Amino acid sequence: MFKPLQNDSFLRACFRQATDHTPMWLMRQAGRYLPEYCATRAKAGSFMGLATNVQFATEVTLQPLDRYDLDAAILFSDILTVPDAMGLGLRFAQGEGPRFERAVRDEAAVAKLQVPDMSKLQYVFDAVSSICKALNGRVPLIGFSGSPWTLACYMVEGAGSDDYRLVKSMLYGRPDLMHRILAINADAVALYLNTQIEAGAQAVMVFDSWGGVLADGAFQEFSLAYTKRVLSQLKKEHLGQTIPSIVFTKGGGLWLQEMSELDCQVLGVDWTVNLSMARKMVGGKVGGAGKAIQGNLDPKILFAPPEAIDRLVAQLLNSFGQPHMDSHTNGPTHIFNLGHGISQFTPPEHVKTLVESVHRHSRQIRHLT
Amino acid sequence: MFKPLQNDSFLRACFRQATDHTPMWLMRQAGRYLPEYCATRAKAGSFMGLATNVQFATEVTLQPLDRYDLDAAILFSDILTVPDAMGLGLRFAQGEGPRFERAVRDEAAVAKLQVPDMSKLQYVFDAVSSICKALNGRVPLIGFSGSPWTLACYMVEGAGSDDYRLVKSMLYGRPDLMHRILAINADAVALYLNTQIEAGAQAVMVFDSWGGVLADGAFQEFSLAYTKRVLSQLKKEHLGQTIPSIVFTKGGGLWLQEMSELDCQVLGVDWTVNLSMARKMVGGKVGGAGKAIQGNLDPKILFAPPEAIDRLVAQLLNSFGQPHMDSHTNGPTHIFNLGHGISQFTPPEHVKTLVESVHRHSRQIRHLT
Repeated sequence: MFKPLQNDSFLRACFRQATDHTPMWLMRQAGRYLPEYCATRAKAGSFMGLATNVQFATEVTLQPLDRYDLDAAILFSDILTVPDAMGLGLRFAQGEGPRFERAVRDEAAVAKLQVPDMSKLQYVFDAVSSICKALNGRVPLIGFSGSPWTLACYMVEGAGSDDYRLVKSMLYGRPDLMHRILAINADAVALYLNTQIEAGAQAVMVFDSWGGVLADGAFQEFSLAYTKRVLSQLKKEHLGQTIPSIVFTKGGGLWLQEMSELDCQVLGVDWTVNLSMARKMVGGKVGGAGKAIQGNLDPKILFAPPEAIDRLVAQLLNSFGQPHMDSHTNGPTHIFNLGHGISQFTPPEHVKTLVESVHRHSRQIRHLT
Repeated sequence: MFKPLQNDSFLRACFRQATDHTPMWLMRQAGRYLPEYCATRAKAGSFMGLATNVQFATEVTLQPLDRYDLDAAILFSDILTVPDAMGLGLRFAQGEGPRFERAVRDEAAVAKLQVPDMSKLQYVFDAVSSICKALNGRVPLIGFSGSPWTLACYMVEGAGSDDYRLVKSMLYGRPDLMHRILAINADAVALYLNTQIEAGAQAVMVFDSWGGVLADGAFQEFSLAYTKRVLSQLKKEHLGQTIPSIVFTKGGGLWLQEMSELDCQVLGVDWTVNLSMARKMVGGKVGGAGKAIQGNLDPKILFAPPEAIDRLVAQLLNSFGQPHMDSHTNGPTHIFNLGHGISQFTPPEHVKTLVESVHRHSRQIRHLT
């Protein structure tokens, strides 16, 4: 269906296999820091105009790959497509973040929720197929979704929030309603990711962007349990290819040990996590089970001068240490990424420094240069 | 100078001594959720009008104690008084948060910074003395300051921030400037807290509200090191009384082990931290050294119905477990608090439920009822 991969370093690292450099990609790598992205977005007229147009979504997904030597592409889409397909009415007002016309705040609104018909998300699956075709085997494509909890935050708050008062009021006051929303979200997310896999996505990622705002105990019950429910329904392979899955909980470093039991291949971590500690805790031993670790440079490091970026990249790679090097066994591996999405104010030439630094230093750590 | 304490449970718990219930107070307990606070603030005309008027500051500090059976008072003041005294020009615009007229963004601005003359903060010390007199020995008074790093965030950003881009750009790009700001802040904070102690504060707390936004490595270098510098200069006693100090880093759970080496008596933790884990890690053994642990209920639990609040309080106290009970030795103790400041939208009657639940359940855990 699609060409064989020319660069499989990202997928190899997901499966804890040796690679000759540390593969890397950047969360939100197709975005506003790139002038060519802004040009396409201007043509599209609006953010959703961009995300729902297959041609534009393909174009912006490939833009960062043309500039930088990245090892994976990620579908350009929005995190809120699934609740939009549930009928909540996603709107992007000028100068504001996303907003739902019909927030889910009471028993009646919760009762109406259903796993949406995937035909409403056909534009996403069409974009996946189109991107795969355009990539033509250069690097793999990562599909993604928000986690059940992260989607619930937006669905109840109706928009971004700085205190999560409404969603937490429901969680603590009406846990039954919250569990119903999360169960529906989990089943919808699993179906959404499986359909992306069928359309050609070679890996999938669950973004639990707001897991870290939960209290200990509440995280396990209202976020982790539903991420598990998603993972348990995911297709493990497609057309003979095994499909790895990545779970990233922003602010979830304290729960890394518990996340190591998830049925996924890769755990993403933010910049508060020490990579040496993460490797010890969840990276596994050579020949044994474990998770690949993805992360975790502070995106604000990209505002420092190139020499500082190079030094801090070396420091981060060293804190993980030499990854697994033997091609006959599995062992601890690292996928380089930022600890969160790249800032829209990032100078694009600093990203070039970053990518070159990661590739150069990660070869040096392997004594390959 | 002041009357002897009638309720010393908070101070006893700070020193890891037995108490017959778990002492409690609430971050931002004097605040907008109380109608009597809003009335005083209306009289004062503005937030700084309230904070700089000794009579008003005394009045609002005591308001929550008249409503609830709390075990400590905390000075009513703002976290940004010290940089204001440095000449940065603190303003509270209508409907916005605090803002500095002269943010510290370049070498020239940093060169001008100095430890301020404490006479500029005389209104704070006068408030401390006045509050102590008004308390008349009911409960101890906690003085406080922002941490050097947290103050630096506001000083460089010029206001609250959601991405800390400016302060992190300086930190990564010009660490020399950041270290200079932090050294001055640390010396200013130490002097500020010592003068509060001389005015009558019986405990002091350092709020590292933004420590958790730092990357691993950067936290140790740019926040923890300067909290240490503050603590090393603090008065350990005043008029024969030992003065305990509390350090609270919001989002700092991953660094709790490192914080256990701080020269302070109490570590505050937010709601992401498991209290049983925290006790094991830093609470110490009976007869040995250790830290008292303060925290950590999610403030949003106060939006749930009273039965849920009661159940979740019991769960939290149980997760810490039975505190030290022998009056001849020291051992693990817990000071109940929220994991962050109380929300302005909190129903005041729910706080009554909270206080009663903490006192009742914490006596039950000790088998005293």
